[in-house]
This record gives sequence, C-alpha cells and structure tokens, in this order.
Amino acid sequence: MFAVTILGNNSAVPAFDRHPTSQVVTLDGSNYLVDCGEGTQIQLINYKIRRSKISHIFISHLHGDHYFGLIGLLNSLSLLSHQQEMHVFGPSPLKEIIELQLKVADTKICYPLHIHHITEPATLLDNEKLTVKCFRTNHRIECYGFVFAEKKRLRKLNAEKAKAFEIPAAFYERLKDGKDYTQKDGIVIKNEEVTFSGEPGKRYAFCADTKYDESIIPHIQGADLIYHETTYLDNLRERAEARFHSTTKQAAAIAQQAGVKKLLIGHFSSKYDTLEEFEAEAREVFPNTELALEGVCYEV
Amino acid sequence: MFAVTILGNNSAVPAFDRHPTSQVVTLDGSNYLVDCGEGTQIQLINYKIRRSKISHIFISHLHGDHYFGLIGLLNSLSLLSHQQEMHVFGPSPLKEIIELQLKVADTKICYPLHIHHITEPATLLDNEKLTVKCFRTNHRIECYGFVFAEKKRLRKLNAEKAKAFEIPAAFYERLKDGKDYTQKDGIVIKNEEVTFSGEPGKRYAFCADTKYDESIIPHIQGADLIYHETTYLDNLRERAEARFHSTTKQAAAIAQQAGVKKLLIGHFSSKYDTLEEFEAEAREVFPNTELALEGVCYEV
Repeated sequence: MFAVTILGNNSAVPAFDRHPTSQVVTLDGSNYLVDCGEGTQIQLINYKIRRSKISHIFISHLHGDHYFGLIGLLNSLSLLSHQQEMHVFGPSPLKEIIELQLKVADTKICYPLHIHHITEPATLLDNEKLTVKCFRTNHRIECYGFVFAEKKRLRKLNAEKAKAFEIPAAFYERLKDGKDYTQKDGIVIKNEEVTFSGEPGKRYAFCADTKYDESIIPHIQGADLIYHETTYLDNLRERAEARFHSTTKQAAAIAQQAGVKKLLIGHFSSKYDTLEEFEAEAREVFPNTELALEGVCYEV
Repeated sequence: MFAVTILGNNSAVPAFDRHPTSQVVTLDGSNYLVDCGEGTQIQLINYKIRRSKISHIFISHLHGDHYFGLIGLLNSLSLLSHQQEMHVFGPSPLKEIIELQLKVADTKICYPLHIHHITEPATLLDNEKLTVKCFRTNHRIECYGFVFAEKKRLRKLNAEKAKAFEIPAAFYERLKDGKDYTQKDGIVIKNEEVTFSGEPGKRYAFCADTKYDESIIPHIQGADLIYHETTYLDNLRERAEARFHSTTKQAAAIAQQAGVKKLLIGHFSSKYDTLEEFEAEAREVFPNTELALEGVCYEV
C-alpha cells in the first residue's frame, strides 16, 4: 500500500486538539516521515505507527511547527536502542542544531544518523521502491516540497496462462515482480507470457508551506495525490500573501492547473475552530478535495 | 493558593500516555513553570492552565526530556502576542540553543525574553510573594533543583476587634496584608491590635534528576512538599546509580532525613506500565508519599 497518514494538520500554534505538521508516507511497510512538529513522537504512539520502521525523515523548512519534534524523536529512538540507519534531510543548519543539542546533553545517538542538508532541488532518495525529489516553494524562509514517486508497480498475474505452464503458486510473487520462470526441463517461460503489465507507479506530492505560486506546478503535474497548505479561508488572501501562506481556493487552483487526481488540504490557522468551510471552499474550485484529518490514512 | 500541578511524570521516552517532565507551581495567580519537556504547551492547553500567566521558567538541566518543549512554548507565546516579560533560567548554553533556533526561523520574539544562565547555587527570584533558590543535584550533566519559598503568609483577621474599632470590611484584605488602619479622627489602629500573626510561608522543593545524594538535604530540610525523582523501583539500585537516577526507597530516605512533610515521586522509567508499586515501596520508608500524577494539582 502507498498511503499518507496525517499526524498534525495545524499551523504554527497547537489548538483545538490539532497538532503541528507531520505526516507519514507508507510504502510497502517502510515509513517515510515528512516534517516533525512538536509532539510527533507522541502522535506516532497514539496512531500505533512503528517508529522503528522510519528510515528517512524529510524536513521542509526550519519554522518550529515543522521540526521542533525532530530532536525528541531522534533521541527517543536512541534510548529505545534503534539499530537501523536513519537519514534526515532538511535545510541548513539543521545538522548544527541537532548536534548542539546532543552535545550539551552529553548524548551519543546509538544508531547511524545521517543529516543531509538540502541545498537545491534534487533527488534525495532513489531506492528500489521509490524516488523522493524536492522542489523549492515560495515561503518566508528556505522551504522545500517533496514528491514521492513509486517505481513501476507490480505486474498482474495472468492466472490462466500461469496454470497452463504449470508454474507453482509459490512463484507467483516473483512473476508479479517481473521474473521469468525456468521449467525443470530448462525451458524459460518469459515473464510477459504469463503476466499483464502493471499500473504505472503513483505519485504523492507534499507542497509544504507556500504562498500561491504556479511555479510549483511542473513538479506536481498529474500527481495522484497532493497535499497543499490552506492556512486561511479565501477571504484572507491578503493576509495569506503577506505571510507567505495560501487560501483554500488558491490551493484548489494549483491542484486544478496541475491536473492532479486528488487534493488534501491542511496547515489550518489556529484562528479556526471548525474546518467544514475549508473543504467547501476548496471544492468549489476542485471537487476532489479532502481535509487532511489527524489519524486518517489517505491512499495515494 | 500555593500548589504544584504535574504536566509530565515520565522519564526520557514518552510512554503509557505519560509525558516528559514539566510542572507548574502556582502562587496567588502567578504561574512558574519548572522544566518543559516536549509537548508541555499542549499539556498546558489540556489542563486549562493559562500560558499567559507564566512569567518565569526554570529548566533543571539540558537533557531533552526536561527542555525540548521550551522553544515551542516561547514561540507560541510570541505568535499569541504575549506582552509580559518572560524570564527563563537554565544551565548554559540554553540561551545559545534558543537563539539559534529563533535565528534560523527568522523569528523575532514579540515580548521581552530574558534567558539567564545558572552558574552556581543562587537566589534566582525574589519578589513580594516568594523566593526561588537553586541547588546542585548529582546527575550525569550539570543539573539544579529549585526551592520555592513563599514569603510570610497573610495575617489572620481578629474579626471581633476589627468590628469593635469600626474598621470597614472593605479594608480587611489590607489588614491581612499587615497594614495599619487610620480612623477619620487620625488615630492609627496598629495592625497587631486587630489581627493574629499568619502562618509561616510554605516551601516546595523540586529535586530534579539526581542519584541518591544526602548533600541536597540541607536545601530541602523541613519543606512542606518535595518532589524527588524515582526513575526505578528499589530492586534496580545499581542501574539507578549507574545512570545518576534514584529508586523509590532512596527518594523516601531523602524525604525522611530531611524531615519534610510530604513527598511526591515521579520521573518514572518507561519500562513500567503501572505505578502502584512505586507508591507502595516509597511508603514503606516514608508513609506520606504520593505519586505525581499528570493533571493533578498538589497543594503545598
């Protein structure tokens, strides 16, 4: 499954039981954390998401509501004897901040921790399952969005053909993965003969904090799901502009122009105690919009 | 009222819905925050404690479970247009850590923020209501406990005498505060004639993280209430010693030798899912012991 679970959907100040930004992108059992506002480690516990399965953390920018929970999470993983490598990506000087806090506490992280500074749009991760690329957004300080692109999906089994060739069912997973089958007599059954091509890989784009800016569109064009911030309702366009944030209809306009399949909206200002209007306004422009609600898992 | 409300009672890693260390000492409507683990600002909201009433924050040491929530709280107060002065006391280099995080976020705190480095045992605060002194504890890194000493309490009204002198009831509060009353004819009624002396001021001592160390006793001698950490049950004395923490019976022995009236225990290791045994063990040595439970307000 390729999905994103929302851990926090509020902007700067926690309010109305909404938490600062954090999301977990899950693909085939691996967890990729996007932003890590204060309390993220507690939200991970609340929603029973295994911290130990997180291998990569992507921090969009160094406003506190997007990273104040990072040091606590890294620290706790160490106290819990985490073993695996951890890669953190974020703007400079994230590494210096984390290292200073570890140094004054006389703390040595027990697992291999690599903090990478993002300096320009680039491919941050490229493994067998997905690539993660970043792009600049238009915010008050250096800020990046992230595109998670699943690699080509598994092929589909042609069960009738597979049976006709007497391929054992135990080999079906490998067929879906594109492998050929070699019979006992040495004859090779080419994969294409017993499978159909799979769907193209899906894409999820996290557009971070940003004012309305069409220059992000090429990066997210045609994505299956995007998250775009909507700090304000559309009557506060001027305030949004001044604070480098977006409104409902601006987020929806980006989704529409980018031809994406679905839009998630979040990063709600703490001046709003209810969220129905956000959804209604965005849907006027882009009908397939949903609120990013904490604890909810959205399939890409 | 002079009281302490527990916001977090767990040690290093959040677990079992227990949060890292933070407490609010309340005296006559002022709030003094002691330690500020991650999520403290959310706990303040949960327990309806007004953040705007906090004027002083005391950080015992720079292990993350005692201060990772500080930057978020200071930041949120600024976003909420806090006006009053804020004084933060903690070991060096707390000021540099906070200032670095504000700088990279291009954030200017909107209220007067003063971060004071504690360098040695000293009086940190001395106002009309209380004094706050600090003392060194025996922990892995530089660490301080804090003693909150209420100034002499209000005098008690001798209602019969006050009526006999025809002192208006509207003046009674000032009588309790020690003021003399001047009659219309210019004759001064001395305060002592119409009041009884009040009780002596009470004292609350927060003993921070510490291994068993009798050298803290002179600082907390005879206090009305102390909080002493009990990271472990008493069968783990060696582990406690090695990690500069204390056990139940060690905390209770300190309370007993210091002749305090009541002991609160907390900073429970996340290896324990229930806490009954902590209370039972400590009470074997010092009967007037209570668990420091989150959300509960303990009168000093």
